[in-house]
Amino acid sequence: MKGNILLDHGEGGTATFQLIKEVFLKHLGEPEVLEDAAILNMKGKIAFTTDSFVVRPLFFPGGDLGKLAVTGTVNDLAVMGAKPLYISAGFILEEGLDISVLDDIVASMAETAHTAGVKVVTGDTKVVRKGDIDLMFVNTSGIGQINHEISLSSKSCKPGDSVLVSGTIGEHGIAVMLEREGFEIQGSFKSDCQTLEKLTDSLLESAPDTRCMRDPTRGGLATTLVEITSASKTGMILYNDRIPIRAPVKAACDLLGLDPLYVPCEGRFVAVVPADETESALKAMKSHKDGQFSVKIGQITNDHKGVNLITEIGGIRPIVALHGVQFPRIC
Amino acid sequence: MKGNILLDHGEGGTATFQLIKEVFLKHLGEPEVLEDAAILNMKGKIAFTTDSFVVRPLFFPGGDLGKLAVTGTVNDLAVMGAKPLYISAGFILEEGLDISVLDDIVASMAETAHTAGVKVVTGDTKVVRKGDIDLMFVNTSGIGQINHEISLSSKSCKPGDSVLVSGTIGEHGIAVMLEREGFEIQGSFKSDCQTLEKLTDSLLESAPDTRCMRDPTRGGLATTLVEITSASKTGMILYNDRIPIRAPVKAACDLLGLDPLYVPCEGRFVAVVPADETESALKAMKSHKDGQFSVKIGQITNDHKGVNLITEIGGIRPIVALHGVQFPRIC
Repeated sequence: MKGNILLDHGEGGTATFQLIKEVFLKHLGEPEVLEDAAILNMKGKIAFTTDSFVVRPLFFPGGDLGKLAVTGTVNDLAVMGAKPLYISAGFILEEGLDISVLDDIVASMAETAHTAGVKVVTGDTKVVRKGDIDLMFVNTSGIGQINHEISLSSKSCKPGDSVLVSGTIGEHGIAVMLEREGFEIQGSFKSDCQTLEKLTDSLLESAPDTRCMRDPTRGGLATTLVEITSASKTGMILYNDRIPIRAPVKAACDLLGLDPLYVPCEGRFVAVVPADETESALKAMKSHKDGQFSVKIGQITNDHKGVNLITEIGGIRPIVALHGVQFPRIC
Repeated sequence: MKGNILLDHGEGGTATFQLIKEVFLKHLGEPEVLEDAAILNMKGKIAFTTDSFVVRPLFFPGGDLGKLAVTGTVNDLAVMGAKPLYISAGFILEEGLDISVLDDIVASMAETAHTAGVKVVTGDTKVVRKGDIDLMFVNTSGIGQINHEISLSSKSCKPGDSVLVSGTIGEHGIAVMLEREGFEIQGSFKSDCQTLEKLTDSLLESAPDTRCMRDPTRGGLATTLVEITSASKTGMILYNDRIPIRAPVKAACDLLGLDPLYVPCEGRFVAVVPADETESALKAMKSHKDGQFSVKIGQITNDHKGVNLITEIGGIRPIVALHGVQFPRIC
């Protein structure tokens, strides 16, 4: 389908149906019913989550708005121990948007959904006047089935537990920011944007007493870890020299005056596991290409003093949650 | 909470948590877990739907963005024969938005959810720079449980079936448009925005062979009816003199050159029921205050010629689906 988005395409009439058919259904596949809601078969505990995505630019090294919108919601389900199954997609489009741009974004959503084994089953399109927004926003909500006999919660973390991270941090935030701002910094930068459902599933198989998993998106690793200690009323020691950061990302952060601990990831997760399951947990995570750099970065402690970073020279730096803006429109 | 929305409030740090606590949780109640997804118990068939809401103005006679966002999703579930249970809420806010406005919208969402017996269980907030959007957008997705032993589908309609509507049409579209454009037309105008779950449930109890229900939002009654005949490959005769329209709405449409058949409703539904269940269906619908003007407006026929309106003087006017824009940003 060629041309540009018109207000017509958001009005629920024949123009809307043409767009649904020639862009959305072309990539996402025909649903069993094309009615006001999808009908699904579920049993037992399910996880339900939502996220809106406003990232700029729409396309960045390692991903785009469509890939990110599916990834973000799949990962929110995966870290709750759910098998992601169904996704909804709500689009808000700017009048005048080139339909080929929308087509590329929807194709990317479809590809990501296919890889993650989820199906986009229901959607909605609104169009607003030119200038009311820039290009497009996407909301995805997701439903996953919880099969594991576990109850994951940040509140369950106990002193002695190990804190693991599934890979190098900060790559999504740096890649999007460099692309948007047009900074030319030597080195290759690529978002870590990827779905985590296979990795989290392996972890839960191998470390059934896993306390919690969290994906450090907005607020970065530091904010996620502070939230875990805050929910579980524990402390945490973090070893600075064990936190995996790629050299170009570290260099870019130094140059830009950013702390990589606060830079968003979109394809990593933190897991807290009991000490005696640490080895099997890491083995399971490392068995996946996407988790090959998994590592223990710290430990839960019994003081109530939040997160403390042990520096290379043995100093202690207290880590606080991000307060405000470091990265607007990064996801 | 006083003040204005800052970019800080969308960054996932402590400012975000303050907003969640002092605005969202204040009205919507504390969830059992404040993690990346809500955990819910479901069994069997569920319905899943999503809608983004971009209505302007945010407040209009008979409703507001918050009431509309919950109502729209509740109704999409209700017309699929589901009992609406859980809602997600994704906000995109403009930097600078007065927090008291957000507070009013969220309070209205909470009140509407309470009335409909649904719980807002998960959410997300993004903030974009001043000028990137005007004020705010809301996406709601919803999950409902299907308890009735029925399979509703527009495809099931058969010749001889009755076409019912649950009340007067066109009130939402006219109320929002008059408010937005500042037209001063005599008469009182109020959106019909209301949740339909009790009405649809009563109907299914009393008319278990109901073929389908649809809410005529964007595109209005006409587009909904055309979609039904198109899905079921049937025709439909519609009696113009039976279609309930309040006199001031009719007058406003005449004045503005609008056809009330295409004006969006947000608290009405169309049901197609077998001829022999028509009486019990109407009795059930009329037993509710919100359905007191329920009436049979037409009949499914065995020709394949879409929807035909029989005028008061016996003429026949073919009804087509809305193609394009009649009402931008009405929902």
